[in-house]
Amino acid sequence: MGKGLPKRSEDYSLWYNELVKRADLAENSAVRGCMVIKPYGYSIWEKMQAEIDRMFKETGHTNAYFPLFIPKSYLSKEADHVEGFAKECAVVTHYRLKNDEEGNGVVVDPAAKLEEELIVRPTSETVIWSTYKNWIQSYRDLPVLVNQWANVVRWEMRTRLFLRTAEFLWQEGHTAHATKQEAIDESVQMMQVYAEFAEKFMALPVVRGIKSESERFAGAVETYCIEALMQDGKALQAGTSHFLGQNFAKAFDVKFTSKEGKLEHVWGTSWGVSTRLMGALIMAHSDDQGLVLPPRLAPIQVVIVPIYRGEEQLEVIREKTAGMISELRAKGITVRFDDRDAFKPGFKFAEWELKGVPVRLAIGPKDLENNSVEIARRDTGEKEIFSLEGSISEKVQALLDDIQNSIYDKALMFREENTTSVDSYEEFKQVLDEKGGFVSAHWDGTAETEEKIKQETKATIRCMIFNGEDEEGVCMYSGKPSARRVLFARAY
Amino acid sequence: MGKGLPKRSEDYSLWYNELVKRADLAENSAVRGCMVIKPYGYSIWEKMQAEIDRMFKETGHTNAYFPLFIPKSYLSKEADHVEGFAKECAVVTHYRLKNDEEGNGVVVDPAAKLEEELIVRPTSETVIWSTYKNWIQSYRDLPVLVNQWANVVRWEMRTRLFLRTAEFLWQEGHTAHATKQEAIDESVQMMQVYAEFAEKFMALPVVRGIKSESERFAGAVETYCIEALMQDGKALQAGTSHFLGQNFAKAFDVKFTSKEGKLEHVWGTSWGVSTRLMGALIMAHSDDQGLVLPPRLAPIQVVIVPIYRGEEQLEVIREKTAGMISELRAKGITVRFDDRDAFKPGFKFAEWELKGVPVRLAIGPKDLENNSVEIARRDTGEKEIFSLEGSISEKVQALLDDIQNSIYDKALMFREENTTSVDSYEEFKQVLDEKGGFVSAHWDGTAETEEKIKQETKATIRCMIFNGEDEEGVCMYSGKPSARRVLFARAY
Repeated sequence: MGKGLPKRSEDYSLWYNELVKRADLAENSAVRGCMVIKPYGYSIWEKMQAEIDRMFKETGHTNAYFPLFIPKSYLSKEADHVEGFAKECAVVTHYRLKNDEEGNGVVVDPAAKLEEELIVRPTSETVIWSTYKNWIQSYRDLPVLVNQWANVVRWEMRTRLFLRTAEFLWQEGHTAHATKQEAIDESVQMMQVYAEFAEKFMALPVVRGIKSESERFAGAVETYCIEALMQDGKALQAGTSHFLGQNFAKAFDVKFTSKEGKLEHVWGTSWGVSTRLMGALIMAHSDDQGLVLPPRLAPIQVVIVPIYRGEEQLEVIREKTAGMISELRAKGITVRFDDRDAFKPGFKFAEWELKGVPVRLAIGPKDLENNSVEIARRDTGEKEIFSLEGSISEKVQALLDDIQNSIYDKALMFREENTTSVDSYEEFKQVLDEKGGFVSAHWDGTAETEEKIKQETKATIRCMIFNGEDEEGVCMYSGKPSARRVLFARAY
Repeated sequence: MGKGLPKRSEDYSLWYNELVKRADLAENSAVRGCMVIKPYGYSIWEKMQAEIDRMFKETGHTNAYFPLFIPKSYLSKEADHVEGFAKECAVVTHYRLKNDEEGNGVVVDPAAKLEEELIVRPTSETVIWSTYKNWIQSYRDLPVLVNQWANVVRWEMRTRLFLRTAEFLWQEGHTAHATKQEAIDESVQMMQVYAEFAEKFMALPVVRGIKSESERFAGAVETYCIEALMQDGKALQAGTSHFLGQNFAKAFDVKFTSKEGKLEHVWGTSWGVSTRLMGALIMAHSDDQGLVLPPRLAPIQVVIVPIYRGEEQLEVIREKTAGMISELRAKGITVRFDDRDAFKPGFKFAEWELKGVPVRLAIGPKDLENNSVEIARRDTGEKEIFSLEGSISEKVQALLDDIQNSIYDKALMFREENTTSVDSYEEFKQVLDEKGGFVSAHWDGTAETEEKIKQETKATIRCMIFNGEDEEGVCMYSGKPSARRVLFARAY
């Protein structure tokens, strides 16, 4: 299990790939760049979805569903948007196969060519705004606060399980508002919702920020983001929320009559997180033994491994633990009693370590004598003997809470230790090469400088910190004046 | 609202289309045959999903996710399967757009042609069995009990909201087993799960049955189904569960080592229900005033409409109802307090009728005086004055239960009245034309007779009743001997 997993320190990238496969999270499919999300991986994604969906609903959003296909002409209506997405589109050109007349199986039927090609959605602004045109006439129809859970396709050339795949699962929120300020507030709110989800549930500290113009979503006026730091010192964009201005309203002619009776274009936002969050979750906390899952997202929170010889001993343990299991489940804790006879305890220990189960209880003959149980926590590996006289569920709940907090604190400390402020380009390059992490530096605000730094160092501007402090300075690259620092990093 | 909705008796088909649109359930999109599921419609679908998903998990299944695209060669591996699906496939042939050199916007980049075309999944047996090949080696790896929630595409020429759309949402279960009997038991179990869901939650009585060979799923050995009757006397296939034999295991070379050490092909099943269930739900219960929703699937179960003049009266009603609302919500009942100032009570009544909210409470000045409330039930339109001295939540819960049962009973009675046993072809045609519904008749078991009856009457064999009784007889069409009756109907 954990044995044979590559070490992070030796090959972080290989460690990640192997971990994803061995922990039964996902695998590559026969279709180039598309992944299969395996049951265990999907059960973590379902837990994420449930929390995110609840948070959306609590902020007044509802779900809907829009078509998978986008007519080619729609994609073209917003100039920046098509520029950003046209290069990596799956294009449907025909709607039928037929038997090959020369007997070579089935072939595309040339008679079934579409008049207009359809694009498999890389994102749905265009098809959704074309729909909103019919939904919105008056200020009374606003705001429209809609989200959809969907699959999208971007034909990436270099793919990696969860982090970058041709097809991925995500949610995309698309809202429409009567005023500019309301739309900006909405995009900021959704960035905050994402940040709260990442921190509270994924135990992942994130920087709330604003993207530079070159890193902005194609078609947005402003892109807000949350950025996380992985254990190898690379940054990962974990979610984005876009203030779209009136760009899509203008492209699709979506106007409303205001309270004052004037005809105005609608203001928009869009925001999304995807199965990429799975990659962030795995890379942020896991170790050389396998996954480390935050208890709030763990499909199995507690595993009980009986240590026994023969059916009789197992039966005694089963009786002994039955009450404990009911007590834990009554508290809403997910428990698996692993009585698989084909595997030895050591094998089971390693398997559940690999799969990141936060708490393991082991109970054997000695524990039966002493009326106790051995509790091990996955994050630190610490073990403790707990007497079954007390309330086990309180103990376990406290431990789960502690693990949730500890792995957050650990990740936060790691990020703080790996965020460096620099004042010269030399120092900047040195930090990137020797330490990695976020590098806070002055930048003159031009796309030209940003591009040169990127070409020379592979570091990109991750964001300007949201509500960050102004600080007069000079650009480390051009020496021109700068009003604020920005965060650079090499990134996934 | 309900006003202006066509009458079922005058044009059932138009009534359905209009109802779907006016009740904000779904609409046609700009993309041919693809629908937009609107928030209200989607919230019903979410309730369905939640219950179905729970039932799957309770029967030991887990969710996973497989690719949207299927290589053309995969589709061809099972002969019947490709025959069944090739004629209505969306085919991806390219992976990039580019700017047209002659300035005509973006065009498909001919340099980005795929070596092998990809089919947008019409169903996922092929891509899933190609994956199972790697998952299954030994009897210890079996059974595999996996489901996925996904979108699929079948390029239907004549589409209709929810009932038949080019893209639709569904779940597809795909299981693999060591023995034939276990796979048969699984397919029967899932038919029963679907039937239980339809009856308990949708309040929709269904016939459990087995399809004739011509109506079988392309690639199945046996197809089990649930069939429902709509108010216009047409049948609707609401869910299917297929015993696949070893067909896909053979096509994708999926073998396992049995307990006895022998290498054998795996046995399979697949089963699905889709957004088509929305169509069934709408058509089964609704009336000329709009939707009638079973309380267990209603996004809003109770609406409270205050009847007031001026903010002061509204405030009194708000205070009066606050406790009632908390009490209802504490019981898990979904309540909407409709205090929208822009609309009159009469308008609100009609709107919530159209949207099928099961229970409406109205409270005005007179009710305040009498410490009472008017309760109206959507299904029968009956009204009652209820004193607020008693427990309102018990009253409302009992009413919701009664509505759930009543609309089931009503649909069941309708089906019983519209199931006719006939012994001659003349009678058969007469019943179809004058009465509709299910027609139970003897059939000689040949595809030839089935096809002729279909051509002559547009009626298809819906199913042989599962565990139905044998009855010697002669085929109403050919006069040949028959061992059992089958159910015919004109169908959606």
